[in-house]
Amino acid sequence: VKTERLAILTEGLFLDHHAKTAHGVIRYGQREVVAVVDSAHAGRTASALIPFCVKPVPIVASLQEAVDAGANCLLIGVAPTGGKLPQSWLTLIAEAIEQGLDVESGLHTILSEDPQLKDRAEASGASIRDLRQAPTDLDVPRGPGKRRDSLKVVHSVGTDVAIGKKTVTIELTRAAQAVGDKAVFVPTGQTGIAIAGWGIAVDHVVSDYVAGAGEWLVDEGARRGDLLFVEGQGALFHPAYSGVTLGLLHGVCPDVLVLTHRAGSARIGSYPQVELPPLTEIAAEYERICSPVHPTKVAAIALSTVGLDEDTARGVIDETEKECGLICDDVVRFGADRILRAVRAELPPVEGTDV
Amino acid sequence: VKTERLAILTEGLFLDHHAKTAHGVIRYGQREVVAVVDSAHAGRTASALIPFCVKPVPIVASLQEAVDAGANCLLIGVAPTGGKLPQSWLTLIAEAIEQGLDVESGLHTILSEDPQLKDRAEASGASIRDLRQAPTDLDVPRGPGKRRDSLKVVHSVGTDVAIGKKTVTIELTRAAQAVGDKAVFVPTGQTGIAIAGWGIAVDHVVSDYVAGAGEWLVDEGARRGDLLFVEGQGALFHPAYSGVTLGLLHGVCPDVLVLTHRAGSARIGSYPQVELPPLTEIAAEYERICSPVHPTKVAAIALSTVGLDEDTARGVIDETEKECGLICDDVVRFGADRILRAVRAELPPVEGTDV
Repeated sequence: VKTERLAILTEGLFLDHHAKTAHGVIRYGQREVVAVVDSAHAGRTASALIPFCVKPVPIVASLQEAVDAGANCLLIGVAPTGGKLPQSWLTLIAEAIEQGLDVESGLHTILSEDPQLKDRAEASGASIRDLRQAPTDLDVPRGPGKRRDSLKVVHSVGTDVAIGKKTVTIELTRAAQAVGDKAVFVPTGQTGIAIAGWGIAVDHVVSDYVAGAGEWLVDEGARRGDLLFVEGQGALFHPAYSGVTLGLLHGVCPDVLVLTHRAGSARIGSYPQVELPPLTEIAAEYERICSPVHPTKVAAIALSTVGLDEDTARGVIDETEKECGLICDDVVRFGADRILRAVRAELPPVEGTDV
Repeated sequence: VKTERLAILTEGLFLDHHAKTAHGVIRYGQREVVAVVDSAHAGRTASALIPFCVKPVPIVASLQEAVDAGANCLLIGVAPTGGKLPQSWLTLIAEAIEQGLDVESGLHTILSEDPQLKDRAEASGASIRDLRQAPTDLDVPRGPGKRRDSLKVVHSVGTDVAIGKKTVTIELTRAAQAVGDKAVFVPTGQTGIAIAGWGIAVDHVVSDYVAGAGEWLVDEGARRGDLLFVEGQGALFHPAYSGVTLGLLHGVCPDVLVLTHRAGSARIGSYPQVELPPLTEIAAEYERICSPVHPTKVAAIALSTVGLDEDTARGVIDETEKECGLICDDVVRFGADRILRAVRAELPPVEGTDV
């Protein structure tokens, strides 16, 4: 396998929130990012413009400059609304493929099905990876009890969507790696896939195969480490996505759950007619629904306190700990260590740990 | 809308269990079946060969005889393993389309995408309906609380797959129609669709849209009547299909559930490592998981007692009633009336009833 050196295309949109794939990959990705291609912001660095991007990746004006800097893979770093690709980008992508760069995309437009791009890729030997395309050999799972004992699986579930499950999962993975665990982030959505370079966007899988996709992801994670942190999707009481949540849950068969919640939210964001039960009841429900298939325990609450001042945030965290009788923290604000300890306390000893 | 008169193609396989679509449509379908096309059994009638088919539909040797008998639609009545179509059948289907017959198929092979069949259909004005193809405009649901008060929704859920949820749903619909309800069977799988002539095979929908498909089905049912009996899929603790079950449940927002169970089964059939909780706990879990989205109540247990002698069957039914504190019956063996009464007792008065 060749070492990938990414150029990330955001042409004009690096500061836009639609560039979250670019931001996430720069912040969390393990692959080297040699340049961002964005003529509107050329000459600056990523971290100078978006502080949480952390790394001073140079922003360049053209693909050629990225190639000169050593890029061998072009990642489309923007998910525009509707997922369609502007013609000017297509021209640039075609040029990259001609030069032999691999292309990676999480767009709805499946690039590998474009006859012109396909022809060029065949000629140059470049590969086109559409992150939203699931493996074609998905099937129903083997079911619980069929994996090695040394493998431990942590799954970050939530009370709603878009409350930071992916961030919590990645922060926990990094904290575990920092204490010596062979920890692996297992991505289940397109941004996570762009960050890690592998995974399945389970919400695009045919419904019969969601659990099978969950098991496939665990199998694949098991080849990479011993302690898996599997990104959750949806929420158990979400009127639109609960099916994805439960299929994934029964496919992944987690040993431990981390329950993610946005402080103060009392209803499902997109469905205000649905009131959330108390956090303790949601936690109990996650445990009950898993129990006959593969027993699990909620080990901690990962609270998002975005928008609260620090004192209020600490107050809400304390309150939640008392209410739930579980460790609670905001991993982005105060670090993932306390939650990681709570998670590991629920797991049998994991190889490679230094606890 | 023209009145459909079906010819059902089973060529050589009428006695095979793969002909369950043919058997189901003859037994339960509302459309007239003028002939079965099956040269191996020509000259007999459907009910003479398969008693539960009930109707003495003539079996004929050729398509032409079916056309002469008035058929204007050819239904593929067999789902062969793998879902592929033999070449000889393709020839016969092409011939039917040329003669202007509509074609309806639940096969994996999407007939309407076959260029030759498509051309012929355009020439003759015939339509090709692939039952497994979902509407292309599916989306997430509007969510609970958005339908008319007079609409009541009953959903048949189960403890496992292939235990008779579809049959229970249809028998309840017929019993409700018999007492004057504007009752509608809402099909969620391919055989149900072939029987009713509409519906969505929800297990083939992209996972993000399962709940949306459930709501779509209720909306569509609401145009046809006031009391819907929605066929369930999978089971809440099924390691492969629970996601389909829950997505459908939260999309359908049932007012009342009927819990289907095979007498004596203690484990998931295809996953013997998964032990079923007691029936009372499964019923409670179905209610709990629905509650925040749309509260519901399990009104009765539909038990399948296939393989038990009548005394034993009645004994198990009595025991289950005591254990669960709910009406329990085998609707195929002893009729659907007791369960229907239990269901209606849980519903606010329904228009058109004579209770």
